[in-house]
Amino acid sequence: MSECILNLLPLKEGEREEFEAIAPDALHIYARSSTVTPEQLAAATVIFGWPRPETMRGAVKLKWFQTMWAGTDEYAGKLPEGVLFTSSSGSNSRSVAEHMLTGLMAVCRRLPAYLDSQRSHRWKDEGPMKTIFGGTVLVVGAGHVGGDFAKLCQGLGARTIGLKRTVSGSAEGFDQLRPMDELDALLPQADVVALALPHSPQTAGLMDGRRIALMKDDAILISAGRGSVLNQEALAAAMGGGKLWGAALDVTSPEPLPPDSPLWDLPNLLLTPHVAGGMRLELTRRRCVEMAQENLRRYLAGEKLVNLVQ
Amino acid sequence: MSECILNLLPLKEGEREEFEAIAPDALHIYARSSTVTPEQLAAATVIFGWPRPETMRGAVKLKWFQTMWAGTDEYAGKLPEGVLFTSSSGSNSRSVAEHMLTGLMAVCRRLPAYLDSQRSHRWKDEGPMKTIFGGTVLVVGAGHVGGDFAKLCQGLGARTIGLKRTVSGSAEGFDQLRPMDELDALLPQADVVALALPHSPQTAGLMDGRRIALMKDDAILISAGRGSVLNQEALAAAMGGGKLWGAALDVTSPEPLPPDSPLWDLPNLLLTPHVAGGMRLELTRRRCVEMAQENLRRYLAGEKLVNLVQ
Repeated sequence: MSECILNLLPLKEGEREEFEAIAPDALHIYARSSTVTPEQLAAATVIFGWPRPETMRGAVKLKWFQTMWAGTDEYAGKLPEGVLFTSSSGSNSRSVAEHMLTGLMAVCRRLPAYLDSQRSHRWKDEGPMKTIFGGTVLVVGAGHVGGDFAKLCQGLGARTIGLKRTVSGSAEGFDQLRPMDELDALLPQADVVALALPHSPQTAGLMDGRRIALMKDDAILISAGRGSVLNQEALAAAMGGGKLWGAALDVTSPEPLPPDSPLWDLPNLLLTPHVAGGMRLELTRRRCVEMAQENLRRYLAGEKLVNLVQ
Repeated sequence: MSECILNLLPLKEGEREEFEAIAPDALHIYARSSTVTPEQLAAATVIFGWPRPETMRGAVKLKWFQTMWAGTDEYAGKLPEGVLFTSSSGSNSRSVAEHMLTGLMAVCRRLPAYLDSQRSHRWKDEGPMKTIFGGTVLVVGAGHVGGDFAKLCQGLGARTIGLKRTVSGSAEGFDQLRPMDELDALLPQADVVALALPHSPQTAGLMDGRRIALMKDDAILISAGRGSVLNQEALAAAMGGGKLWGAALDVTSPEPLPPDSPLWDLPNLLLTPHVAGGMRLELTRRRCVEMAQENLRRYLAGEKLVNLVQ
């Protein structure tokens, strides 16, 4: 039986032709998540994109679904039985890594205070700054994002240590890879601690008050991945008491962060509303398209798919 | 006659001993610019640091003076006749380059808007972002600062073109070096235009309205070096009309920028008060000390000094 590919990806000129060249015998249907019809879903044997999870039960002929995001939680238990499920894990890691680096450098050079002065039309010197050149960056979670971030930090002259649950061999971007249970021993050595972990029972609350206290007094904390990893009350208490040079958080718990959270106004803390990843860079979008194309090639050839979730 | 070295540099532990090991026969006097006495100035044959220019006439035995900054204008015509004069040019280029990169990335990821939202305790997505990965960075002024900035941009995956008055050979950090008179031809190709020029009759007003109009509509302008290079009124008019993705300026003309300047409130423009360089990073301070030590070695050996101004 021939394949019917329902393509909900945000495609640009020439990209439909790329998919059609890979699968010339398939029927290609192009739509948007917001406008996809029940008939299109019912006809599809393959879906690329981000359909609403509650509509997936209507995809009665579905054999394989690749979501355009790294995260897969929202589809848990919502896909028809026996369907191959793949993610686009890694597609936005460069974007997240650049956002983490931007936040880190902004805090090093006190941009939050300088922007406050700018808004008041005030020309005011904020004194000493920091650099990561020659410093140690501890990346908690050495996956796609952590690795890309570490590589950028190496390019700026930092030494990088990555923490993983299980360490085997080396990983690009890291001068050293160490097991997660060395976290407490490594925290006092780090000039920057970067959290790049997913939510899980093991990671929730990992960065608590005790561990924040183990950091250098003038260290910087970066948080991406999931907000639940960080104890926000403990961070607010520590920074309120003068601990840390600064922090840059792109994720919080809950999201949106409530307006009365103390995090908003901590000195030299930069807060962005979970915008490090997503489809905000063209290179993320293109990477996502390429990942779908690569897996489509593999699917038609009967090879093992990349980023297999189930 | 033995040397009397008046050392006004901000030294740390162990650094006096380093100077004394280089010149064991000299008399070493340590002071601060703010507390140096007329007697100390009158005794000095060598001065390192940043004495007030108007006091230099009192240094009647002075043979050599090395300022701790890259700029030398303030001492023009104020040094006793026949004195060797050297600068610390290059000592803060890494700091300025990191500041330029920080501003560039902050604007790429819309941090000015995100910080405004943060101050209002508002969780608001600002949409698309930019990266310099795969883009072209045109650096106008390929000196110490321009070169260090270009190297950082290469590390982030950008192609770099440096403009110099006279081009000879290649320069680290630049994929291409071109003569300054190709500026107009290159502006339309650049995703980022970075000004890193000193003030001079040739550079004043170089980046005017006509040249800003030659830039891509979504390009980013970075300005370090001297504010006089940029026509601020033209920039305000262009950005007010929707031209450019954003801008990051560390220098203005005049400085401080008057409170009623339109620059303060332009959208996605980051303004910092000439704080990219100076002695804000420990690595700048240390580099400055090392430059004094290297030239002291050369001076005592009768070799040619580095960064000779006159």
